[in-house]
Amino acid sequence: MTAATLTIDLDAIAANWRALDAKTACETAAVVKANGYGCGADRVARRLAREGARRFFVAVAEEGAALRQALGPGPEINVFSGHMPGDTDMIGDLGLVPMINSLDQMLRHLEALPGHPFGIQLDTGMNRLGMEPAEWSALREVATQQNLTLVMSHLACADEPDHAMNAQQLKVFRQMTDGLRAPRSLSATGGILLGPDYHFDVTRPGVGLYGGRPFDDAMPVAHVQVPVIQVRDVEAGETVGYGNTWTAQAPARIATIAAGYADGIIRAMGPDAYVWVGETPCKVVGRISMDLIGVDVTGVSPEPQAVELLGHHNGVDTLADAAGTIGYEILTSLGARYRRRYHSA
Amino acid sequence: MTAATLTIDLDAIAANWRALDAKTACETAAVVKANGYGCGADRVARRLAREGARRFFVAVAEEGAALRQALGPGPEINVFSGHMPGDTDMIGDLGLVPMINSLDQMLRHLEALPGHPFGIQLDTGMNRLGMEPAEWSALREVATQQNLTLVMSHLACADEPDHAMNAQQLKVFRQMTDGLRAPRSLSATGGILLGPDYHFDVTRPGVGLYGGRPFDDAMPVAHVQVPVIQVRDVEAGETVGYGNTWTAQAPARIATIAAGYADGIIRAMGPDAYVWVGETPCKVVGRISMDLIGVDVTGVSPEPQAVELLGHHNGVDTLADAAGTIGYEILTSLGARYRRRYHSA
Repeated sequence: MTAATLTIDLDAIAANWRALDAKTACETAAVVKANGYGCGADRVARRLAREGARRFFVAVAEEGAALRQALGPGPEINVFSGHMPGDTDMIGDLGLVPMINSLDQMLRHLEALPGHPFGIQLDTGMNRLGMEPAEWSALREVATQQNLTLVMSHLACADEPDHAMNAQQLKVFRQMTDGLRAPRSLSATGGILLGPDYHFDVTRPGVGLYGGRPFDDAMPVAHVQVPVIQVRDVEAGETVGYGNTWTAQAPARIATIAAGYADGIIRAMGPDAYVWVGETPCKVVGRISMDLIGVDVTGVSPEPQAVELLGHHNGVDTLADAAGTIGYEILTSLGARYRRRYHSA
Repeated sequence: MTAATLTIDLDAIAANWRALDAKTACETAAVVKANGYGCGADRVARRLAREGARRFFVAVAEEGAALRQALGPGPEINVFSGHMPGDTDMIGDLGLVPMINSLDQMLRHLEALPGHPFGIQLDTGMNRLGMEPAEWSALREVATQQNLTLVMSHLACADEPDHAMNAQQLKVFRQMTDGLRAPRSLSATGGILLGPDYHFDVTRPGVGLYGGRPFDDAMPVAHVQVPVIQVRDVEAGETVGYGNTWTAQAPARIATIAAGYADGIIRAMGPDAYVWVGETPCKVVGRISMDLIGVDVTGVSPEPQAVELLGHHNGVDTLADAAGTIGYEILTSLGARYRRRYHSA
């Protein structure tokens, strides 16, 4: 039993969803793309459906097809990438709702699946997905006469509340959507925290559900325990790991633990990361290997059998900071080698 | 059909194995830990068994159990982490061979599975896994009277041929193993390239099989094609992506492609990475999102339907350099969302 254990706390995800739902007066959906931010889209979505979520978002139709398997008929499954070539059967047969991003997609959808519901994604300045204002002007009349179930856009800087881009995108979104009868959605987690002006009819929290910034009150969701394979004494001057990047300055006791960058422990985080033994932080030493990490456990007694890599002491954002990235990437990188456990009271 | 396609070239893996095998006069095993460096341990190992590989290495017993399913009885499956608590049934029932790292593991193995084969992993200075010289001196007599099938160590700096650590570890390995009857193994890909002194009886190539440095003659193995979701014109001064980190200096045409860091396109690589449309390199613009990347396709005609992210133009090391990491991490991060294809003539 050497593989590390990843425990996903479904109760925490449910609590985070309820807490974000309580911040608005509108409907709260849930984003479960990228396999539920690495946490397991099927388990997460089924749990949130029980909490009352009725609308889910995925990145591509293939994810939507798998999610329909897990959820059964009923909940609405929205696809951010819209209606792409080859998607028609999945969208039609499984009742997915594409968020149409362009004239091309609109024509494809109306021709292949007339009467089938769809949303519209608008670009309000991020220049990533969605129709530009001119394109939307030309299509708005047609779209609103069809089975339009949502009009949405996405904020580029919502994790920076004071960024001028937020108000700018809000203004453009209003200009593009005021007067429509279809429900509107602008905000993911960051937008929810910007306040009621940003909420409209549907919010779409993602990272906040999974315990990441900018929702600082989120309960931690992902917990990783890693077995210790071996503990050894090193003398001052001895090196540890690839490239001899760490040299003991004094006699030390080094544990080698059974996880590495193949488990999503991003290699860049080496020099600044800690793991925990009970209440004791233990510094990562040397380079993170594919399957192994060295940890300084000098003075830790009794000798640890396992360490906490992710959990109450080390949140996803703590690890992200050590790796120079964001909590989202920690979550989606967690990988397939873990023994996965789901916690639900 | 919006999910990106990851094609693993099994013929290339086989060719890389043969090329590395041809560099030595000894047995060539294959390292398929971390799901075959992300390429699929079952498919890779079955192909290499057909090429003549008779010995495979994995990181943990759980990987060994899955590999035994794929390979059937016959090939030897060696487990780097040795014999850990809870591993006995897997090791015994599935005929895995643990590389024993410590006195504790040795006692566990001999008590639980007397007569069952095992290897010994020695620490020659990397201070990661394996017995120290003093521990080995005390156990050597006992070990050699049992079913000892391999004695191995691992080089910390083999990708730097001129590093003094290589000769130092070689010297220590000889001191610890000269006179033994059991076969010896010191080298992975890097060590094979250091020359015959480092080869001993068994080599254990890993990254070289999968097309990564330091085996510069390796054939590329992983090919990623990503669909374009949408193409748009932006004016000078417009921004693309999260945080407005990229601003168009002139009118440009931007494609949004359907992959992101959830697919292992490491977020850090954003500003320095290119994708390819035919023979044309196209710069990544703005931050890499979870499921989406912006690409500058100004002047590319006809408008691309898909781009090459990994393949003949972009090797794993090219992407790794852009992300400030190593090709190994690109491979093991590739993730589960791809449509996976295996190429074999």
